[in-house]
Amino acid sequence: MNLRLEAALRKLEENNLDGLIVSSSANITYLTKYQSRDSYFIISAKGCMYITDSRYTEEAKARLDKKIIVHKSNGSVFKTIARICLELGLKRIGFEARYLPFAEHKRIEEYLDKQARLIHTHSIIEKLREVKDEDEIKKIKMAVQITAKALKFIGEFIAPGQKEIEVVAELERFIRYHGSSKGAFDIIVASGPNSCYPHHIPGQRRLKNAEPVLIDIGVDYQGYKSDLTRVYFLGKITAYAREVYDIVLDAQQRAIKSIKPGVSIGQIDAAARDYIAKKGYASHFGHNLGHGIGLEVHEEPHISPKEPNVLLPGMVFTIEPAIYLTQKFGIRIEDVVLVTEGKGKVLSGAVNK
Amino acid sequence: MNLRLEAALRKLEENNLDGLIVSSSANITYLTKYQSRDSYFIISAKGCMYITDSRYTEEAKARLDKKIIVHKSNGSVFKTIARICLELGLKRIGFEARYLPFAEHKRIEEYLDKQARLIHTHSIIEKLREVKDEDEIKKIKMAVQITAKALKFIGEFIAPGQKEIEVVAELERFIRYHGSSKGAFDIIVASGPNSCYPHHIPGQRRLKNAEPVLIDIGVDYQGYKSDLTRVYFLGKITAYAREVYDIVLDAQQRAIKSIKPGVSIGQIDAAARDYIAKKGYASHFGHNLGHGIGLEVHEEPHISPKEPNVLLPGMVFTIEPAIYLTQKFGIRIEDVVLVTEGKGKVLSGAVNK
Repeated sequence: MNLRLEAALRKLEENNLDGLIVSSSANITYLTKYQSRDSYFIISAKGCMYITDSRYTEEAKARLDKKIIVHKSNGSVFKTIARICLELGLKRIGFEARYLPFAEHKRIEEYLDKQARLIHTHSIIEKLREVKDEDEIKKIKMAVQITAKALKFIGEFIAPGQKEIEVVAELERFIRYHGSSKGAFDIIVASGPNSCYPHHIPGQRRLKNAEPVLIDIGVDYQGYKSDLTRVYFLGKITAYAREVYDIVLDAQQRAIKSIKPGVSIGQIDAAARDYIAKKGYASHFGHNLGHGIGLEVHEEPHISPKEPNVLLPGMVFTIEPAIYLTQKFGIRIEDVVLVTEGKGKVLSGAVNK
Repeated sequence: MNLRLEAALRKLEENNLDGLIVSSSANITYLTKYQSRDSYFIISAKGCMYITDSRYTEEAKARLDKKIIVHKSNGSVFKTIARICLELGLKRIGFEARYLPFAEHKRIEEYLDKQARLIHTHSIIEKLREVKDEDEIKKIKMAVQITAKALKFIGEFIAPGQKEIEVVAELERFIRYHGSSKGAFDIIVASGPNSCYPHHIPGQRRLKNAEPVLIDIGVDYQGYKSDLTRVYFLGKITAYAREVYDIVLDAQQRAIKSIKPGVSIGQIDAAARDYIAKKGYASHFGHNLGHGIGLEVHEEPHISPKEPNVLLPGMVFTIEPAIYLTQKFGIRIEDVVLVTEGKGKVLSGAVNK
């Protein structure tokens, strides 16, 4: 049995659970090392069961570890889940309360017919995913490398007159020619004043000279995600934009330098946020400093101001300070950092800033 | 107030509800006519409330109908939702059991503190969305037209030696240069034997001569989706593939001809499925004949064998019969059809089959 399943089983024991119904695709992919779609997974010391429909059963049987039993759900998948739990003799069955819709919980509970109890759980598998193993780090590095190449390519490609959505089109094409299967999220290309919206939707606006172009891009490599942001300037950079850019970059460097095992996450956030505040831009940086990244673009740990948990070697997350100046422009610089035994290692270091 | 909100309020009255907490993005977009992200919506005769976070509040205020009040959630969004419900004096509050995660339901219920009841609802807004209005049909037509152009383009582009993922790359690029903001789903390019998997993930396999290439593509146009499938042949078509192709095409034509208001949905499915069975391929067509399409790629009505509901003018759905021959190849032909007063109108008629 793989180490991830073993670690999950220990967690179940700690939580006094006989089994766990896993419904988050990312959690199922993590536990089975198989890119899961439209499935449920039951983990228990008495057996691990993968439940999916006719579209995927053959592939799942071929690719999953032989110790995992594949079940084809005919009719109600919830009936199948309940039946399996009862056949395994599970009595205290956890479920993922953050993901399982109310109606699905209700159906499973009805089918269990009071012969077993469903127990509300939170982040059991997500916490295991916080610290990446060697295979995961390798895949995240690949995703970051493809993204870095795409950013270099687009830095040379962009020119005044192109539409934001056309720049997205070129990036979407590029990443698939360079080893990625798809974007990790909808790529952001925000030109001029659009860059002041953290989640701008790229549209028909044309890039102009003497304006910033903010590009936020991530790719999927074998299920693992990247997430980088760079701001390019077309033509001459205004003195104001340069000043703001340098503050954001300095803030990012300070945060990155403060990364090492044992430091509280709140301190990392403070390293950047306090500097931006000192420079007078506190009210222009509203979001968290970063987020864990792996099988999901946003996962634990969240690099937020009040987070008391400490950094551990193997954690991977973004550092993305920003300054948004409404109706003017926004600057965000985002890299992916791995915590090593000694310090933070920027995985996207080679991309010019 | 817009007609959609009025229709929804009538539904609430029928269901004896004071209000409804809407958490499905597609449902919120439908009701507000604004492309919603990361939001919740409360609809009630006493007022309509849009709840989102600081990233989106300014944009939402600018774009939403002035009768909808925008609330910025600080801290717990669930606390904000409960507070608004109580301030409006709602007592019987519906929620969407198919979407609301168990944990979110629990939080809202706790904050309501027994001063109001949360009531399990199913498909209230989805049922309204089954019949499209003029504006929706216009947008779906645009999405279909862009997709048809992309299919024509790629029919001329593909050649032996190209990788599946490269064909995806070109399609992803093309649609953004032709008015779409993104794909409606991960585009499928399945070459040779890969075409026998209904949901193949495109990869590094190279297209070969004398093989089918199945392409299933949809785009997003202002929130509305399309979904078309065509099978191309590189070089000479084998007699076997031609035979199977013609059966699938005939099955599709039969289903399309049977479409008119008042006919039961099960009959439409049968028109194609019985024909495929008669030709000896019953066990090679496992999935539904089609699905409603609009703000979501898959929505109601589901064109499935046992569906007793009848067709109504304004319904829009796919017709996609298929024959999958394991380890050999698969043929699926998919079009989008609108039910008009007289019959079914194929919106993607211009694409060669």
